Amino acid sequence: VEKMKRFPGYICQKTWKVGRDDPRRLIHAFKVGFSLTLVSLLYLMEPLFKGVGQNAIWAVMTVVVVLEFTAGATICKGLNRGFGTLLAAILAFLFEFIAREYGKIFRAVFIGASIFLIGAITTFLRFFPKIKKNYDYGVLIFLLTFNLITVSSYRVDDILKLAKGRFYTIAIGSGICILMSLFIFPNWSGEDLHNSTVSKIEGLAKSIEACVNKYFTDEESDIENIDNITDDRIYKNYKAVLDSKSTDETLALHASWEPRHSVHCHKFPCQQYVKLGSVLRHFGYGVVALHGSLQTEIRTPRSVRLLFKDPCLHLASEVTTALMELASSIRNRRHCSPEILTERLQQALQDLNTALKSQPRLFLGPNSPNNTSKMLALVAATARQKLEHNPSNLKPESPTTVERKSKGGTEAEKRVLRPTLSKLTITSLEFSEALPFAAFVALLVELVARLDIVIEEVEELGRVACFKELKHGDDAI
Amino acid sequence: VEKMKRFPGYICQKTWKVGRDDPRRLIHAFKVGFSLTLVSLLYLMEPLFKGVGQNAIWAVMTVVVVLEFTAGATICKGLNRGFGTLLAAILAFLFEFIAREYGKIFRAVFIGASIFLIGAITTFLRFFPKIKKNYDYGVLIFLLTFNLITVSSYRVDDILKLAKGRFYTIAIGSGICILMSLFIFPNWSGEDLHNSTVSKIEGLAKSIEACVNKYFTDEESDIENIDNITDDRIYKNYKAVLDSKSTDETLALHASWEPRHSVHCHKFPCQQYVKLGSVLRHFGYGVVALHGSLQTEIRTPRSVRLLFKDPCLHLASEVTTALMELASSIRNRRHCSPEILTERLQQALQDLNTALKSQPRLFLGPNSPNNTSKMLALVAATARQKLEHNPSNLKPESPTTVERKSKGGTEAEKRVLRPTLSKLTITSLEFSEALPFAAFVALLVELVARLDIVIEEVEELGRVACFKELKHGDDAI
Repeated sequence: VEKMKRFPGYICQKTWKVGRDDPRRLIHAFKVGFSLTLVSLLYLMEPLFKGVGQNAIWAVMTVVVVLEFTAGATICKGLNRGFGTLLAAILAFLFEFIAREYGKIFRAVFIGASIFLIGAITTFLRFFPKIKKNYDYGVLIFLLTFNLITVSSYRVDDILKLAKGRFYTIAIGSGICILMSLFIFPNWSGEDLHNSTVSKIEGLAKSIEACVNKYFTDEESDIENIDNITDDRIYKNYKAVLDSKSTDETLALHASWEPRHSVHCHKFPCQQYVKLGSVLRHFGYGVVALHGSLQTEIRTPRSVRLLFKDPCLHLASEVTTALMELASSIRNRRHCSPEILTERLQQALQDLNTALKSQPRLFLGPNSPNNTSKMLALVAATARQKLEHNPSNLKPESPTTVERKSKGGTEAEKRVLRPTLSKLTITSLEFSEALPFAAFVALLVELVARLDIVIEEVEELGRVACFKELKHGDDAI
Repeated sequence: VEKMKRFPGYICQKTWKVGRDDPRRLIHAFKVGFSLTLVSLLYLMEPLFKGVGQNAIWAVMTVVVVLEFTAGATICKGLNRGFGTLLAAILAFLFEFIAREYGKIFRAVFIGASIFLIGAITTFLRFFPKIKKNYDYGVLIFLLTFNLITVSSYRVDDILKLAKGRFYTIAIGSGICILMSLFIFPNWSGEDLHNSTVSKIEGLAKSIEACVNKYFTDEESDIENIDNITDDRIYKNYKAVLDSKSTDETLALHASWEPRHSVHCHKFPCQQYVKLGSVLRHFGYGVVALHGSLQTEIRTPRSVRLLFKDPCLHLASEVTTALMELASSIRNRRHCSPEILTERLQQALQDLNTALKSQPRLFLGPNSPNNTSKMLALVAATARQKLEHNPSNLKPESPTTVERKSKGGTEAEKRVLRPTLSKLTITSLEFSEALPFAAFVALLVELVARLDIVIEEVEELGRVACFKELKHGDDAI
């Protein structure tokens, strides 16, 4: 009973949330209602009804099925439906023309056989990846229309008139849909893709920032709850990136049907967005690893971590800043300044390197004082060069794993183990205590290398999408 | 012209490939053709036509739209269509009942208003995530039917008869679809999910094997081509895992509509498959990192790698074996023996540890001779315990990063740099040369920790899905 009482409140809350998350949904709902009313006027108003007759039903049907949330999806469906219907009508008339000469029984058999054949062939066609991706709906409508016309032709004499009327009403329906979606509060798939790319980059930036901050906060105040909340936030921010493949591809597909709606450029570069998305996913896998290294059971002693807190935070904040700058450059459709970003990242890497070198006890290889910085420069250089050599390579790129080590934190300063483990008698963990830190730093440096590829792709996007030139005032990040 | 000539050959080749990849597609195509022919008999045969009349069209339409590749998808669509139609009919009659009393003009206005309202509300409903996921099609059909009936009711007097006839034919169409998909060469979504899980695990196993083998092969015979082919194979094997989320969820959704088709168990545990899939994805991110460490520009000298070749290969082969054993246990629907698997993995970890210890020059922390093995045991233990504490936790699990280090391979024995880099004057790389190796080993060990979670989930799957008990003869892996 208590549950039943709260049910309406729950519904209201949900409704409010769905509407607030994206107010365009509300507008879209009204658009659909309006289009449907418009199209039913064909049936309800006497003069219009005289023109189209019973076929008005088909206009209603078309509007229900075709009008989608974004303009691209509507056009894609509308055109698919239109061409599917047209092709099916032509084929059906061809068959009708052949069968016309013969007797009733032969015609029935002929119609049955052709339905079987066309049904089997088109169904098989729908398994072809390319057709499935672009024309699945069109093929379905083709099959539907073909069957309807062929079957009807058996009983109706003037099948041509029937088909013509039906085609007109479908055209009216499609036309209304396309007008509504293009001119009245249009939602563009391309726009959605653009925005989702921006928010994905920002999500990654937030994840990294939260990860690094969490790593260096004092776990004395280790309240499980707060911990979980942070974890959840980190997770939520990068999760959207990891599972973005199918959404991205659908949006890009629909965007490719949209007419250009920007003054600057010839065509919306959906493929470059997809490519950037795939690079971001690869970057995201790195963030997953970084997040994973937070959850290691064996923690590096706080004193060791504190030594490198500042340079690590600095590097992380540079990575975050760079990502945010990329996001804002995409949002404002202007070029970014990769040189400045890379320079600052290099500087942060150098600082970290200096800090690591300043602690010889925790550092390996005293005979080569300044190779690390060289190596770090190398990381960026190789990532860049590799990309230049095969820019179309979307596969995971060299996440040039560079490791920094620290000689096992002198004595076992502190062991932070989860309560469940404290029973185990692990008394000789000195060796391993600094290791998670080394892994953490390595992953952070790896992210920088991957970030370089992201920067490269964003630049490419700027070129293809004819972004604005970078004004001098914008440099200040 | 040359291209035009080759076009038919290209088509044939494609068709052959699509058919050979999954012969069930061909069967499905014939099933659709057969069902369509069957349903058009309603229209073509005189006695049947007398029974259903023009409404036979709706049966044809239902078959085209509802009959899907797998039984689950067909049932899901069929039931959605059925209930959507029924609800819409009820609502439409209610409205009709209200409007009946009034004059023609009021009725037209009333119908228009109700179409607008219902159109807007249902469209908005489709944005609710839960409704979108499970009942999207049903809501669409509801809207469609409601509009058709409401609009028609304005001109047709005996709307009840019209609706009844339409409902019967839709029921006939849905019935044929469900019969065809359940009883004639049925394809089960659950079966597909099961098989895709098996092949994903096998793909991961192959990826890891190929990665490790490639890492330890002599790159003197470094022919770019072979390299790329291996890379492609590694990539292809784990790619399917990374992007499996949406496919998995769709299959699971459809599987949840399927009646049980196994004698052993009450219900197909689709949620456990989804959970296992998410754990596998997390495991896959680790494999991406491992693959990434192959592509590092700075390679560890061969001599260093050769020292640890055998234990590493051993560990990798144990991981591969364990994955293959898991895959085969799922395929044969029998329990696996986690103890044996874990034991063998532990053994391999120990061997690697011993090998690392036997080279003190390359190893850190001589004062603690046997802690590494303890730590490795700990890795497995913590992963296991963590899972037991919150088994529902699908977020990335502690990839307990354990790092092994090797003091920068004494002198720079060899530098294997890509040609593009050889110009740079990097003469002091001694320090960093052993680092990629440390990262590689660390990632391998991390994979073992994640493997433990996979084993746990497979066990759980075995429990939930009532797999067969493990026979004693099966132990031999």
